[in-house]
Amino acid sequence: MNIDAQTFLHGMLAIGGGLAAIGCLGGGVGIGTVSGKAVEAIARQPEARGNIMSTMILGIAFAEVTSLYALIIAIMLIFVKWQ
Amino acid sequence: MNIDAQTFLHGMLAIGGGLAAIGCLGGGVGIGTVSGKAVEAIARQPEARGNIMSTMILGIAFAEVTSLYALIIAIMLIFVKWQ
Amino acid sequence: MNIDAQTFLHGMLAIGGGLAAIGCLGGGVGIGTVSGKAVEAIARQPEARGNIMSTMILGIAFAEVTSLYALIIAIMLIFVKWQ
Amino acid sequence: MNIDAQTFLHGMLAIGGGLAAIGCLGGGVGIGTVSGKAVEAIARQPEARGNIMSTMILGIAFAEVTSLYALIIAIMLIFVKWQ
Amino acid sequence: MNIDAQTFLHGMLAIGGGLAAIGCLGGGVGIGTVSGKAVEAIARQPEARGNIMSTMILGIAFAEVTSLYALIIAIMLIFVKWQ
Amino acid sequence: MNIDAQTFLHGMLAIGGGLAAIGCLGGGVGIGTVSGKAVEAIARQPEARGNIMSTMILGIAFAEVTSLYALIIAIMLIFVKWQ
Amino acid sequence: MNIDAQTFLHGMLAIGGGLAAIGCLGGGVGIGTVSGKAVEAIARQPEARGNIMSTMILGIAFAEVTSLYALIIAIMLIFVKWQ
Amino acid sequence: MNIDAQTFLHGMLAIGGGLAAIGCLGGGVGIGTVSGKAVEAIARQPEARGNIMSTMILGIAFAEVTSLYALIIAIMLIFVKWQ
Amino acid sequence: MNIDAQTFLHGMLAIGGGLAAIGCLGGGVGIGTVSGKAVEAIARQPEARGNIMSTMILGIAFAEVTSLYALIIAIMLIFVKWQ
Amino acid sequence: MNIDAQTFLHGMLAIGGGLAAIGCLGGGVGIGTVSGKAVEAIARQPEARGNIMSTMILGIAFAEVTSLYALIIAIMLIFVKWQ
Amino acid sequence: MNIDAQTFLHGMLAIGGGLAAIGCLGGGVGIGTVSGKAVEAIARQPEARGNIMSTMILGIAFAEVTSLYALIIAIMLIFVKWQ
Amino acid sequence: MNIDAQTFLHGMLAIGGGLAAIGCLGGGVGIGTVSGKAVEAIARQPEARGNIMSTMILGIAFAEVTSLYALIIAIMLIFVKWQ
Amino acid sequence: MNIDAQTFLHGMLAIGGGLAAIGCLGGGVGIGTVSGKAVEAIARQPEARGNIMSTMILGIAFAEVTSLYALIIAIMLIFVKWQ
Amino acid sequence: MNIDAQTFLHGMLAIGGGLAAIGCLGGGVGIGTVSGKAVEAIARQPEARGNIMSTMILGIAFAEVTSLYALIIAIMLIFVKWQ
Repeated sequence: MNIDAQTFLHGMLAIGGGLAAIGCLGGGVGIGTVSGKAVEAIARQPEARGNIMSTMILGIAFAEVTSLYALIIAIMLIFVKWQ
Repeated sequence: MNIDAQTFLHGMLAIGGGLAAIGCLGGGVGIGTVSGKAVEAIARQPEARGNIMSTMILGIAFAEVTSLYALIIAIMLIFVKWQ
Repeated sequence: MNIDAQTFLHGMLAIGGGLAAIGCLGGGVGIGTVSGKAVEAIARQPEARGNIMSTMILGIAFAEVTSLYALIIAIMLIFVKWQ
Repeated sequence: MNIDAQTFLHGMLAIGGGLAAIGCLGGGVGIGTVSGKAVEAIARQPEARGNIMSTMILGIAFAEVTSLYALIIAIMLIFVKWQ
Repeated sequence: MNIDAQTFLHGMLAIGGGLAAIGCLGGGVGIGTVSGKAVEAIARQPEARGNIMSTMILGIAFAEVTSLYALIIAIMLIFVKWQ
Repeated sequence: MNIDAQTFLHGMLAIGGGLAAIGCLGGGVGIGTVSGKAVEAIARQPEARGNIMSTMILGIAFAEVTSLYALIIAIMLIFVKWQ
Repeated sequence: MNIDAQTFLHGMLAIGGGLAAIGCLGGGVGIGTVSGKAVEAIARQPEARGNIMSTMILGIAFAEVTSLYALIIAIMLIFVKWQ
Repeated sequence: MNIDAQTFLHGMLAIGGGLAAIGCLGGGVGIGTVSGKAVEAIARQPEARGNIMSTMILGIAFAEVTSLYALIIAIMLIFVKWQ
Repeated sequence: MNIDAQTFLHGMLAIGGGLAAIGCLGGGVGIGTVSGKAVEAIARQPEARGNIMSTMILGIAFAEVTSLYALIIAIMLIFVKWQ
Repeated sequence: MNIDAQTFLHGMLAIGGGLAAIGCLGGGVGIGTVSGKAVEAIARQPEARGNIMSTMILGIAFAEVTSLYALIIAIMLIFVKWQ
Repeated sequence: MNIDAQTFLHGMLAIGGGLAAIGCLGGGVGIGTVSGKAVEAIARQPEARGNIMSTMILGIAFAEVTSLYALIIAIMLIFVKWQ
Repeated sequence: MNIDAQTFLHGMLAIGGGLAAIGCLGGGVGIGTVSGKAVEAIARQPEARGNIMSTMILGIAFAEVTSLYALIIAIMLIFVKWQ
Repeated sequence: MNIDAQTFLHGMLAIGGGLAAIGCLGGGVGIGTVSGKAVEAIARQPEARGNIMSTMILGIAFAEVTSLYALIIAIMLIFVKWQ
Repeated sequence: MNIDAQTFLHGMLAIGGGLAAIGCLGGGVGIGTVSGKAVEAIARQPEARGNIMSTMILGIAFAEVTSLYALIIAIMLIFVKWQ
């Protein structure tokens, strides 16, 4: 098992990136909660559609960002640190 | 167990990709919540079908993206870094 | 335990594929939520069956895709990278 | 512990197949949700039985598929790659 | 610990089969949900017993299948691959 | 630690059988749900006792089977493969 | 650490038996659900006590059996295979 | 670390007994559910106290038994097999 | 790391006793459920205080016993077997 | 790593005591449930304060005891067996 | 890795103390339940504030104690046994 | 496996960064709760949109920060300490 | 890997401190429950604001303390014992 | 693998910091609960906005602090102890 130093590092970076992907779960569940309530609200008050839509998109955007954080960490591990 | 450096790296990349696939769970649960509420809403207000549909698809799309992030991380590990 | 490099890689790919299969859970739970609500809705408004059906199938399709992602990752590990 | 390369691979494939079987859980829970709601709906609107039945079977089929994915991954590991 | 290759394989197959048995959980929980709702429904509409019964059995059958998948994987590991 | 091949196999079979026993959980929870609802239903409609009883036993039987699967896997590991 | 083959086997059997005991959980939770509902039902319809009692005992018996399975697996490991 | 065979066996038996104790959880939760409902029922129908009490004790006894199973497995491991 | 046989055994007994202590959780949660309902019931029917109290203590006692089992296992491991 | 036998034992006792501390969780959750319901009840029936208070303290005491068991196990490991 | 006996013991004590800190979770959740209900009750019956307050503090104190147990175990490990 | 000191450190930093990404989950779930309630509230009181919006953004911002903490820890590990 | 005794101890202290930080979870969830109920109560009874506020702060303070315990354990490990 | 003492310490500190980041979860979930209830309350009583706002911020601040504790532990590990 004559592994050089760089390969060992790359292997650890791959495992770290895989672990980071588990952090994407939270955003998916959160977006589901927001959108589900928005769909209910629009069906009940179609005239408030503009306000509901913009509030929903704001909430989705911020929840998405928490998933994005996990992606960013994974990308930093896999691309930036992979020389 | 005379394994060369490249094979060790590939093995670690395979494990990392498998771990990343677990991050797909969140999107599936979230999409289920959104669509279930949309189906309920359409049955109750069939006339608001257009608005509900477009709101639902927006929510689904963003939830799908969190699953996609996990897929992207897996693909980056398995294809981009696999020389 | 004189294992050559290729066999080690194949073993790691098998473990990675097995881990990836756990990511299929989310879609199954999500589809159950959507379809259960659709069945309820159709029983209550049989006249809105067409709309409910198409909304449900849309939701199912996207939830299915998150399970498919896990399958794709497993297949990429087991077939594409298995030389 | 003089194990040849092929036997090591087979052992890893067996572990991978066992892990893949855990992915069958989601479909069972999802089908339970769909069918339970369908049974309730039929008892309340026996005249809508045809529509409910076909919607239920559609939902069951797609949820079943997510369990099938896990089975497919296991079979690919155990039969296709087992030379 | 002079273990020959075949014995190592058999040991791994035994562990894999034990892990696969955990995948039987989902079906048991799902069948409980279906049957519980069917019992409730029959008590409330005894005249719809035939329809409820056949819907329930359909749901149970498909949920049972997801448990069966786990059993099949275990049997494939323990009998088919055990030479 | 001069362990012969057969003893190693038996040890692995014992661990596998113990893991398989965890798969008995699902049936116990499912049977509890069915019977609890059946008891409620009988108390409310004592005249429908025959129908409720037969539906409950059907549900219990199928849920029991998922626990039985885990037992079967354990027995196959402990008795059939234990030479 | 000069351990003979038989002692290694016995040690593995002990671990396997301990894991099997975790499978007793499901029955305890299930019996709690059944009996709790039975107690409620008897308090509300004391005249249906006979029917409720016999239904409850049926449900308890089958849930108990899933815990018994785990006990059986443990006993098989600890007594039958312990030579 | 010159450990003789008997000591290794005793060590494994101790670990197995500790794992078995985790199986006592289910009974405690189940008994809590039964007794809680019984207390509620007695407060509402004090005249049905005899029936409720006997039903409760029946349920508690069977739930207790699932915890007892885990204790039995632990005792078998720690006393019967400890020579 | 010249550890004699007795010390190894004692170390394993200490780990086993620590694992057994986790089994005390169930009783604490169950007692909380019983007592909470008893407090509610006494506040609503102060005249039934005697009956409620005795029922509660019965339920608490049996739930306590499941925690006691875990303590007994731990004591057996730490005192009885510690020579 | 020339560790004498006593130090190894002490190290294992420290790990076992740490694991035992996790068993304190159940009592905390259970006491929260009891006291919360007692506070609600006192606010609604201030005249029954004496009875509620004594019932609550009884429930708290027994739930506390399950946490105490875990503490006792830890103390036995850390003080009694630490020579 | 020439580690003397004392350092090994200290390292194990540090890990044990870290594990013990996880046992602080239960008290935090339990106190949240008690105080939340007390706040609700005071808002509804401001005149019963004295009684509610003293009941709440009693409940909080006992729940706090379960967290304190974990802290005590950690302190015993880190200070008392650290020579 | 001739790995120099720096590479070992980098590998550990990669694993630590991956673990830190799991801490992003909480923010995503929390933001979903806030936004979902805000969408509901705006649909019911469109005239209070300004107040609701600013309260929501305040809540989102603080929940986002907890996810940001995890990102900061990951960045500190991957960039600041990576010489 | 020529590590001296002090460095090994420091490494173990770092891992123990990281584990202790997980114990901060409970307080965060508990404070969320208390404050949420307090906000609801103040909106409904603005005149009882003083009482609600002081009760809430009392509850928050005690829940905070359980998180503080985990911090204290971590600090004791990282600063007091780090010579 | 000729790693000097300092590098080993740094690697352990990195792992400890990553574990500490998991403790940020609780605050995110708690803040979500508080803010969601505050948004609901403001929509229903816009005139009590000042009081609700200040109560909410108090709750958020304390919940944030539990996440901050985890961050502080991570920073202490990564910066203060990293010489």
